[in-house]
Amino acid sequence: MADDRRFRVTYRIAISDEAEALERARAVALEQTVEVPDDVVPDGWIRDEIVGRVDDLRPSGAGAFEAVISYSPESAGHEAVQVLNVVFGNASILAGLRVTGFEPGPVLSGRFAGARFGIAGLRRLTGRDRCGLIAPVIKPQGSSPAELARIAGRCVEGGADIIKEDHGLADQPMAPFETRVRAVADAVGSANARTGGRALYFVNVTGAGGDPVAQAHRAKELGGTGVLVMPGLVGWQTVQALASDADFGLPVMTHPAFTGAFVLSPDFGIAHGLLYGALQRLAGSDISVFPNVGGRFGFTSGQCLEIVEACRDEAGLGPPILPSPGGGMSVGRAPDMVAMYGEDVVYLLGGSLLRAGDRIGDEVRKMREAVERSGA
Amino acid sequence: MADDRRFRVTYRIAISDEAEALERARAVALEQTVEVPDDVVPDGWIRDEIVGRVDDLRPSGAGAFEAVISYSPESAGHEAVQVLNVVFGNASILAGLRVTGFEPGPVLSGRFAGARFGIAGLRRLTGRDRCGLIAPVIKPQGSSPAELARIAGRCVEGGADIIKEDHGLADQPMAPFETRVRAVADAVGSANARTGGRALYFVNVTGAGGDPVAQAHRAKELGGTGVLVMPGLVGWQTVQALASDADFGLPVMTHPAFTGAFVLSPDFGIAHGLLYGALQRLAGSDISVFPNVGGRFGFTSGQCLEIVEACRDEAGLGPPILPSPGGGMSVGRAPDMVAMYGEDVVYLLGGSLLRAGDRIGDEVRKMREAVERSGA
Repeated sequence: MADDRRFRVTYRIAISDEAEALERARAVALEQTVEVPDDVVPDGWIRDEIVGRVDDLRPSGAGAFEAVISYSPESAGHEAVQVLNVVFGNASILAGLRVTGFEPGPVLSGRFAGARFGIAGLRRLTGRDRCGLIAPVIKPQGSSPAELARIAGRCVEGGADIIKEDHGLADQPMAPFETRVRAVADAVGSANARTGGRALYFVNVTGAGGDPVAQAHRAKELGGTGVLVMPGLVGWQTVQALASDADFGLPVMTHPAFTGAFVLSPDFGIAHGLLYGALQRLAGSDISVFPNVGGRFGFTSGQCLEIVEACRDEAGLGPPILPSPGGGMSVGRAPDMVAMYGEDVVYLLGGSLLRAGDRIGDEVRKMREAVERSGA
Repeated sequence: MADDRRFRVTYRIAISDEAEALERARAVALEQTVEVPDDVVPDGWIRDEIVGRVDDLRPSGAGAFEAVISYSPESAGHEAVQVLNVVFGNASILAGLRVTGFEPGPVLSGRFAGARFGIAGLRRLTGRDRCGLIAPVIKPQGSSPAELARIAGRCVEGGADIIKEDHGLADQPMAPFETRVRAVADAVGSANARTGGRALYFVNVTGAGGDPVAQAHRAKELGGTGVLVMPGLVGWQTVQALASDADFGLPVMTHPAFTGAFVLSPDFGIAHGLLYGALQRLAGSDISVFPNVGGRFGFTSGQCLEIVEACRDEAGLGPPILPSPGGGMSVGRAPDMVAMYGEDVVYLLGGSLLRAGDRIGDEVRKMREAVERSGA
């Protein structure tokens, strides 16, 4: 009988022989837990509970099997980092092995609350109770704080729900973190006062100074009302710490920088929906950014929808969260995008917005209207 | 004329047509900096300095080109995270693009000191002035603090230079961080007192509590004399912060968990020597762990030697550091390993050591002797 306390990971094993696939699955179960050969695993609790268990092995198309391996919640403890370490730490280095499923089970679901806000919370914060949210990105890198603030203010006046910083704005000399965040927060606040809106301002937190959590608190002091975090560069514990820190209390958007290699091959890495959906929810993300179909990256609509489904799945860990496709959005494309993504989505509006120059607010307004019209 | 202030990244582009490869290179130069279309890049300083420059494009075997793109030091600022973000943040999601070279140039080389200790510093700390260092790993996950401490003490008595914690020891209930580190540190200290040796104890820091830097300081208070960090899970700023924190002052060993997907395809990701060599040095690692040829992972001897060369290259950023092959080491294999790796290396001794049971110290001693004999 299956032990329901355990969490379950499905791996696709690109091996055509069943006996070899089973041998590989058993090797993964050891590798990801005790990391010793089977003959030196201590009998008793460690062998019975801690070692991963191959609960199932079934064919998965031609030349591959799918193995379900269950792990003890005690292997993970209370850290998202350690869950990921068990799921795929060393196993990430094994050719022919891809993570295709993750079920946290009741114990991890109890230990990890997931997103603080999720879809419902973000709608409450922004006051946008229907249709997709619009999130223009302030850039380019190299702009002064005053220029970024000016763009942010105009986008708020155009009806933006979220002002997102470009993930390439760090703590560089042309727009140092303190000066930049203060200037943009002031501009967003003033524009909100003029429009009566409640646009949020998500500050990019890269860990300048060594502690991204402390930097996120500083962003809040300076007037930020959300943060952008790149877990692939700044660590997954950063997302977990911010999502569970009551004194912080702001929403967290996660960005896929430096994680692309995980999804580019069907033969290894992590499935799109897991990496940009389920695992983001485990860590505590409220909004998960991914590259939109039809933009500059090669994701298919099927892969994008897999991410969307994983973000919104009611059965997932914690509250459903907002998927956030980046790139490839335009007024002309709005009907197709709305048909594809539905209502609970954050549209990132990137560099092409800048073509409007001083009329960037008008562009945001047109996009807002196009999304609302398409959703009617 | 080349601008010598800039840092240079070489990308392999898996496109056979030269004009298309150049177009792709120019798109990367925009993507990794301003992240806007070329027609909206502001003229002046942003276009002239901030946008990446395609300095060279040359054939790289059949069906591919190598592009050298230079970036402004101002794009990176003083953060290792932001250097990596410029090198490969969004570009990691582009199929057919692989990072194959990184030259920090004079400005980044001045801003980033690299490793605090490196090879010379580790030899000084351990008193091992020649031959490879021996680093048994304490495990398995699930063991009590007392059991881990017992193994550690015996390994020190056998002549270990470094006691390394398994990267799967986090803050789990069976061996909580505080209790475990105190117990193991005491055992290592007592054994050092008995032998007159100076074995170091590297504590695994996973960011339990949300701040891995604070946790590393706590490890030091509890008696740890080094830390193990997984930058792929805990963030690259953690390594930089610890390497540059004068109050901390202990060596940092980095572990490849959750980074394997970067190296498994020749068509995307990051070259072995860069990921496990040059980029670890940029962040400040003193010892870089990678999977040894002949162990459980599929690295070739060529890939291992590429990593070793990148760790030790005198022309690299900061002092040369110690490569640390994990797995596949035995007394019988010592002559081959020493012939392959030379003197400046840390041999991780993993789970097979545990076969010796209470005589684990004897096994460490035999390995020590085999390495010294082979090096003579």
